[in-house]
Amino acid sequence: MKKIISARDALIDKAQTLLVSVTGDDGAPDMGTSPFIRDEAGDFFIYTSQLSAHVRALIAGNQTRFMLIADERASQNIWARVRLKFTAHSTVIERGSTPFNEMADKMAPAFGPTMALIRQFSDFHMVKITPIKGVIVTGFASAYEVTGPHFDVGAQLTKS
Amino acid sequence: MKKIISARDALIDKAQTLLVSVTGDDGAPDMGTSPFIRDEAGDFFIYTSQLSAHVRALIAGNQTRFMLIADERASQNIWARVRLKFTAHSTVIERGSTPFNEMADKMAPAFGPTMALIRQFSDFHMVKITPIKGVIVTGFASAYEVTGPHFDVGAQLTKS
Repeated sequence: MKKIISARDALIDKAQTLLVSVTGDDGAPDMGTSPFIRDEAGDFFIYTSQLSAHVRALIAGNQTRFMLIADERASQNIWARVRLKFTAHSTVIERGSTPFNEMADKMAPAFGPTMALIRQFSDFHMVKITPIKGVIVTGFASAYEVTGPHFDVGAQLTKS
Repeated sequence: MKKIISARDALIDKAQTLLVSVTGDDGAPDMGTSPFIRDEAGDFFIYTSQLSAHVRALIAGNQTRFMLIADERASQNIWARVRLKFTAHSTVIERGSTPFNEMADKMAPAFGPTMALIRQFSDFHMVKITPIKGVIVTGFASAYEVTGPHFDVGAQLTKS
């Protein structure tokens, strides 16, 4: 269990981007990637353009699943890429609101000079993602359920 | 265009795992990762366990989308992770058939010692994935359509 917790913490600490999977209006799955920052409550914040279909579906409130995954090169072997997959509650933060401006300020150092450029682009939306539950996988026969925004580790799963 | 083709080739050359996104029976999206090998025709082959829900959905023929994505650390900045997202035709290769055995032999060196162990596990399935079409993204305002199993680069997209 200690090993799982430490794998979880290392993954969250290192990951800079989140994978987003979403069901499109036609029922087909779509996905994409977004840089994120995370606050102390465990919420993830992304800033992403609706020019991508998966973002339009996310904003429309379609069903989603998210994943953090360790780089291939950071993994001991290709079967053991540590990954954290979770369902979440997503809400769009209104452009120009106080929370929007505060979070955009926080994103600036993490997201690089690009953020100053895209901050004014109205095709970009800020989305708050509150994790509900999911699974952490660290290799064969090593899958554990996780719950809540801090991914508390629960029972080992034989099937996920 | 030359830059896009060279980004595409570098990504395919380096990537060892494929991301699988699939619509579950409940309409919710699910996803996972699998090591792959690719043949000269451009088909991808994965060997993956039905103990994961996304694999059961993939095998059941639910709608899928696949993605290759460059490691975070291999990317110049977090907004420019090169990724190739595509639809495909997936078929399960029957366990014990000649194509199954030939492909399992080819997987052995690429997938490491683990392959010898899991080769006999009947919860694992070999799936052939033939790309149809998709998009390559190399950064902001740099998305191009790709078609066919060799991801021939086509028109630049303003929206994807």
